[in-house]
Amino acid sequence: MDEQKVRELIEKGRALIRTGYGKPEIEDYQSDQDLKKPQPPLVKAPMTENIIELPMNFDDVEYNRDFLNVINSRSSHRVFTQEKMSVDQLSFILWCSQGIKDIRGRAYATLRTVPCGGARHQFEVYMTIQNVEGLEDGLYHYLPMGHKIEFLKKIDDIRWFINASLQGQAWAGKANVVFYFAMDFYRDEWRYGIYAHRVSLIDAGHITENIYLAVTALDLGGCAIGAVNGKLCDDTFGLNYIDESIFYAMPIGTVSAKDKEKEQDFYSFVKEQNL
Amino acid sequence: MDEQKVRELIEKGRALIRTGYGKPEIEDYQSDQDLKKPQPPLVKAPMTENIIELPMNFDDVEYNRDFLNVINSRSSHRVFTQEKMSVDQLSFILWCSQGIKDIRGRAYATLRTVPCGGARHQFEVYMTIQNVEGLEDGLYHYLPMGHKIEFLKKIDDIRWFINASLQGQAWAGKANVVFYFAMDFYRDEWRYGIYAHRVSLIDAGHITENIYLAVTALDLGGCAIGAVNGKLCDDTFGLNYIDESIFYAMPIGTVSAKDKEKEQDFYSFVKEQNL
Repeated sequence: MDEQKVRELIEKGRALIRTGYGKPEIEDYQSDQDLKKPQPPLVKAPMTENIIELPMNFDDVEYNRDFLNVINSRSSHRVFTQEKMSVDQLSFILWCSQGIKDIRGRAYATLRTVPCGGARHQFEVYMTIQNVEGLEDGLYHYLPMGHKIEFLKKIDDIRWFINASLQGQAWAGKANVVFYFAMDFYRDEWRYGIYAHRVSLIDAGHITENIYLAVTALDLGGCAIGAVNGKLCDDTFGLNYIDESIFYAMPIGTVSAKDKEKEQDFYSFVKEQNL
Repeated sequence: MDEQKVRELIEKGRALIRTGYGKPEIEDYQSDQDLKKPQPPLVKAPMTENIIELPMNFDDVEYNRDFLNVINSRSSHRVFTQEKMSVDQLSFILWCSQGIKDIRGRAYATLRTVPCGGARHQFEVYMTIQNVEGLEDGLYHYLPMGHKIEFLKKIDDIRWFINASLQGQAWAGKANVVFYFAMDFYRDEWRYGIYAHRVSLIDAGHITENIYLAVTALDLGGCAIGAVNGKLCDDTFGLNYIDESIFYAMPIGTVSAKDKEKEQDFYSFVKEQNL
């Protein structure tokens, strides 16, 4: 292992986090918004004509209504029971994590259930779906305008794809839904330009936290994953990695309190190594 | 403006988001955890002896208990009314965003109200506090073990510091509390090494989302800020930027529905430019 290279990469990583040190890299920088260039679309257009409206009325959805109890109950789940999920549950989760509540100006910004720097909401949500009542297994894309999803296509082996796309995390193969988050780079760069990317990652965390809380409220479970094979994901969902790329994922699904011991197996090394 | 340099920086930013493209930079990489090096402490030790226990019983705290209503009601607030906040409210927010629910192993990981990759929880929370009942105005540090805060020191002009630390965002000067998030780099690098930093930023978003939701539930308001002067923050809170640096902030405080129009003033350019 090249120690010198390790130190360089660690320092490069730390420099990415730190802010407000040193001079700006371009003193007279102006973003495309500053330059009055036209704004890109607020959301990606549908990629197909296979559009499915999602229920927007959650009155009949069973969920834990107590805010603090949901916060306190949240934990990561990696053992899924492969029971059916309902479309109502999927709709609830998508609403909580990316739902559009309003539009600012004529078409300046979407105001969503989650916050995002400058209300740019530069994310697109793709999904593998299996075992969701009334939906064909396959690949999907969330259409936040009007709260819809579109069916992109079937794939031969969803579990193989999930496993490979998450760098071999086999447990995720049983997830009813895996959310794959893509960033549409220019949607944010139009406003923030060379300063867009650092804060974009923080904004992605807002989305996954709301998914954690929504699945907790629904008595489902999940666990966000940073180890994503972006190239395989982009190729599979038909994304051009230059402008849009999948960088983060979250498998979710039905869980059972009975599986608590199996969940502990993921941390057996802690006991073995007396950590 | 140097267009070539702009394109380079944009591409560098995009490359930071993308994952799973190209070969690993170090093929045989092992992190310090892989190498069985000793683990760093789970939290930072107190910096002073001025320790204040926070209330842990939230039975008497008035908050909106309906989970979906909290999700739907969240929005950014930048107009603070400068009324007093209670210590109970501050305690509730800190609990929801960084509270320690359990310890895994002897001292392997803290399990908190928010998720974090590998349960590293590499963040430290510092605060400016003013107008909080029973607390002296000044600088504070959250001590998650036992759910306490410590009073670091008074400063001459809190509003000047807030304004300068947030790159001139004067509205934040009226915030009852500004949370300043620092990253203790090695706490995460011990496990993830050269891969730590990208996902660390996403993890920071989990914290701020829970703060957004907690303040919404409490009928307070706030708005997270990426434009932070890390050098001024690190110098003021006494952090060594090499190992720990402040990179993100969130002012919160008392708000009033009557101020809705003043909130709109932050977006007056949308109407003026017919966006």
